[in-house]
Amino acid sequence: MKTLKIIKIGGNIIDDDVTLSQFLKNFATIGGPKILVHGGGKLATKLADKMQIPVNMIEGRRVTDQETLDVITMVYAGKINKTIVAQLQANSCNAIGFSGADGNTIVSDLRPATPINYGFVGDVKQVNTETANLLLTNNVTPVFCAITHNENGQLLNTNADTIASELAIAFAPIYNTELYYCFEKKGVLINVNDENSVIKTIDTNNYDSLIENGIIYEGMLPKLNNCFHAIHNQVQKVCIGDAAMLFNENSTYTTIKV
Amino acid sequence: MKTLKIIKIGGNIIDDDVTLSQFLKNFATIGGPKILVHGGGKLATKLADKMQIPVNMIEGRRVTDQETLDVITMVYAGKINKTIVAQLQANSCNAIGFSGADGNTIVSDLRPATPINYGFVGDVKQVNTETANLLLTNNVTPVFCAITHNENGQLLNTNADTIASELAIAFAPIYNTELYYCFEKKGVLINVNDENSVIKTIDTNNYDSLIENGIIYEGMLPKLNNCFHAIHNQVQKVCIGDAAMLFNENSTYTTIKV
Repeated sequence: MKTLKIIKIGGNIIDDDVTLSQFLKNFATIGGPKILVHGGGKLATKLADKMQIPVNMIEGRRVTDQETLDVITMVYAGKINKTIVAQLQANSCNAIGFSGADGNTIVSDLRPATPINYGFVGDVKQVNTETANLLLTNNVTPVFCAITHNENGQLLNTNADTIASELAIAFAPIYNTELYYCFEKKGVLINVNDENSVIKTIDTNNYDSLIENGIIYEGMLPKLNNCFHAIHNQVQKVCIGDAAMLFNENSTYTTIKV
Repeated sequence: MKTLKIIKIGGNIIDDDVTLSQFLKNFATIGGPKILVHGGGKLATKLADKMQIPVNMIEGRRVTDQETLDVITMVYAGKINKTIVAQLQANSCNAIGFSGADGNTIVSDLRPATPINYGFVGDVKQVNTETANLLLTNNVTPVFCAITHNENGQLLNTNADTIASELAIAFAPIYNTELYYCFEKKGVLINVNDENSVIKTIDTNNYDSLIENGIIYEGMLPKLNNCFHAIHNQVQKVCIGDAAMLFNENSTYTTIKV
């Protein structure tokens, strides 16, 4: 089986032109089949501000009303996705942009409106790998933004970490699948202020105690839940760290194990 | 040789939700390989207004500065393209969105800044059909927005009519290629106020006299130049009319002949 690398990048890379450009230059050099998944960064918030679209937050999370969905679609699938695709082409990596609607690749259900109505948010129901795999086997690199659809014409805002893990799981039967979450830290840290305190391995055994001891909390919880979801569903390798883990053999990062 | 239909739609279809939805429902029923090319409609202007981006016009044409390019990329490749793709999926047409950067499909040169600097506008230099054709042969329908790239990471605003004709020409060696320009009229009219005055055939012979007599002017000139460019370059059939020409055998429209 060939190895497929699925790499997710977030705001710390996307929000800075120089960092993004350097990352894509490196990403283009990765051999073999690969998929890039990108979040949205701060650009969607900036555009919503500029358009004076009011931000509606419930329990710290943004509600995706119709106007916000339009902003997200424009920024994620338009500006960010096409900027990335054009830059990959400039680095001789033949890329193609995807939302979940493209190739009917990621189908999701509208999240139930109770107990909290988050609006046009989708929970992944099904991943169809055919079109993306057709491209992969022809040396074309899919670049996914964090938008899915419900097969009835409705686009839905979906968490980019979840898209990465669901893609990895869907490809696991046909590739030796590796999932890399790139973020602003070198990995999961014991002490959030100490970049040298990376936990090299998290497995089912030490995960619970890391939560109990308050070392893993807030934003890291859903990210790690995505990791465990993947590693429990035939994904071969799941890592969290900064982008150096992809390009520098000596870098330190966190590996998730069963 | 199989027949490939390349269909371009503009603002009169895109700007109205009901019209677009009905068009896509019909488009989905077209058998055999097909490509949809869409313009931008009024949405880009609306967004630019909302973002208070000043419109800079030279000789009646909008200048694409960096902010305008961002707006166009967001609206064309984001909002409009993904709305169309999601609706085609809802109609059981497996579609995938493309800009010219995707699959390195449409490469263009920045238009020279003299005599008039239109900013980030691209003139098509090369069309690479491989990726789109791979999808076509697997029953996936490419949906192109009017954005190209220069292979150095720069996205460029490009006329949608031109993209349609250049795609048709590039596919002509491998398909019996048909090019359909859908617009608000039933065809090229002798009398712009009389919908029943459709000129059924325009060829090289009567084209010049139609221009001399002021029957073809302004916006129709570049459209017809695109038509003749296509018909002189192995495109088998080139038609201009309203969308009915695609779905109704008895409809009247204009056919361009050599």
